[in-house]
Amino acid sequence: MKRLYGRWAQILLLVAVLAGAPWALAQTDPLPSWNDGPAKKAIVDFVQATTMQGGPQFVPPAERVATFDQDGTLWVEQPMYSEVMYCLERVPAVVKAKPELAEVEPFKTVLSGNREAMARLSKQDLEKILVATLTGMSTEEFRAEAKKWLETARDPRWKRPYTELTYQPMQEVMKYLRANGYKTYIVTGGGQDFVRVYAEEVYGVPPEQVVGTAGGTKYGYDKSGKPFLMKEPRLLLNDDKAGKPEGIHLMIGRRPHAAFGNSAGDKEMLEWTAAGSGARFMGLVHHTDAVREWAYDRKSPVGRLDKAWDEAVRRGWTVVDMKRDWKKVFPFDR
Amino acid sequence: MKRLYGRWAQILLLVAVLAGAPWALAQTDPLPSWNDGPAKKAIVDFVQATTMQGGPQFVPPAERVATFDQDGTLWVEQPMYSEVMYCLERVPAVVKAKPELAEVEPFKTVLSGNREAMARLSKQDLEKILVATLTGMSTEEFRAEAKKWLETARDPRWKRPYTELTYQPMQEVMKYLRANGYKTYIVTGGGQDFVRVYAEEVYGVPPEQVVGTAGGTKYGYDKSGKPFLMKEPRLLLNDDKAGKPEGIHLMIGRRPHAAFGNSAGDKEMLEWTAAGSGARFMGLVHHTDAVREWAYDRKSPVGRLDKAWDEAVRRGWTVVDMKRDWKKVFPFDR
Repeated sequence: MKRLYGRWAQILLLVAVLAGAPWALAQTDPLPSWNDGPAKKAIVDFVQATTMQGGPQFVPPAERVATFDQDGTLWVEQPMYSEVMYCLERVPAVVKAKPELAEVEPFKTVLSGNREAMARLSKQDLEKILVATLTGMSTEEFRAEAKKWLETARDPRWKRPYTELTYQPMQEVMKYLRANGYKTYIVTGGGQDFVRVYAEEVYGVPPEQVVGTAGGTKYGYDKSGKPFLMKEPRLLLNDDKAGKPEGIHLMIGRRPHAAFGNSAGDKEMLEWTAAGSGARFMGLVHHTDAVREWAYDRKSPVGRLDKAWDEAVRRGWTVVDMKRDWKKVFPFDR
Repeated sequence: MKRLYGRWAQILLLVAVLAGAPWALAQTDPLPSWNDGPAKKAIVDFVQATTMQGGPQFVPPAERVATFDQDGTLWVEQPMYSEVMYCLERVPAVVKAKPELAEVEPFKTVLSGNREAMARLSKQDLEKILVATLTGMSTEEFRAEAKKWLETARDPRWKRPYTELTYQPMQEVMKYLRANGYKTYIVTGGGQDFVRVYAEEVYGVPPEQVVGTAGGTKYGYDKSGKPFLMKEPRLLLNDDKAGKPEGIHLMIGRRPHAAFGNSAGDKEMLEWTAAGSGARFMGLVHHTDAVREWAYDRKSPVGRLDKAWDEAVRRGWTVVDMKRDWKKVFPFDR
């Protein structure tokens, strides 16, 4: 009886698919938040071509590596990177532990809460804040602090945790690739230790598949003789621009077959991917939707998109137009 | 008919196992090259305890990380590390490309072929040779050179390719762990790029699971505009001693549940593993078999085992006595 029912269900489904019944097709669409168009088609074509056993573009499962920039590619980066918000909001705690910093710049400006003055901080000032808030504690202390912040901090525009502001269509691309044997990596200019705190929960990407800007650690022992790793202000990898292919070599040791980015910092990663033999997919998210998210490109101080865009157009890489290509932006969008 | 046969086979196997038939037991022994004893028992107990759903020591699959030192733990390291042999044997090619080096030390000594003089080279001399032979070329050129060498070079004692001199019992441990959901990593003082050339073929460990001593690379373009990564003489990670837990944090971002080593360079990795909560396995291979392999510990310049051994004994880590615990050493042993 059960078996007979199963056979009937199969036949019904087949008839429905052949007849173009939307409910039957929806079941098999791996990218439901994408509008039909060249971007969606390019992604699906790439996955199908590289996983078709015996096909001319088949990629062996072990070599299926896909890399994703994070800020602006997988989640919101405007008006400021979430990790920089973390660092700025950590300053009071740092000053509490070292009161002498209260009268020293740039800490004094951050403590003042004057947003205009903070926006004028120089790159050197920002680096001092990053060093003071991201180093000088053990890896486990850092992890606990960052975790606590992520649970309570809210994005100023959507009043939601930063970890909810991921792009639903990109989450679908990652799942679709994984379902087809791809290992998905995050390759971010952000701090490797920071992104690892939430990447598994938010993106299904385990810590060992997060490549980011990384500092050195120093192995030592606490008073009870228990070993710990101290985060040091010593840069090992600046995982941005040329640092992205360098980081991919260091941490993965394979050239990606697919890479997604959104800004100038991703150009070299996409070039490096494109320079491999066989089928390669290069995708750039273009932020064109000021209503549902943000619209910015050539003139934005955060996530500037200029040369990478020109190169994408020239070389036929896939440019994702957020407004045109995405049915919804966030998981919570209706 | 087929189903009936299957049922009968199951019953026969069950009867045989209960009766202690050796052919039936052999089928289920994951470590056939290990003699029964405390080391084998400790490994099997650990795997069973950490994979028993609902058990008090259960480790979720995502956290099952096992790290293995390479030289002296997975393959032969005497009388000299294979990679150092590679570097020494590359010197003539380096001098051919830069003839001015022929009269400069330490290259002059290496070219002379005088083994006694070569054995007296200082650490600084050796570093010059490593820099000259492991850097200054693209990652792809290096890979091709190392691959070619590995195919033709022979170990002086066994007259076999170095890649055949892996320990069969340790290969079985890696396979056994993988069959139980563990990700196996190599964490080696050797060069990450060097070990990645053969780790997948030799150990079933993909490049992204090889952590080793790593230098920086520099992204650039060749005359045709194609990007490449140049290997630079800039040390990012000295993956030895304290560098091993530091490297594990950098490249994996999770604390291992099991770690295997054989020398002073592995002490910190084992300590770091032991300091985690829940079930942890720490193993040290002790080279006690001069007939089948080599015998060395406290006084050996290569693979010295002193403090790590004392700590293993003091803390009850598993010490593998090669002579006592291993039925065979190499895959080609009878």
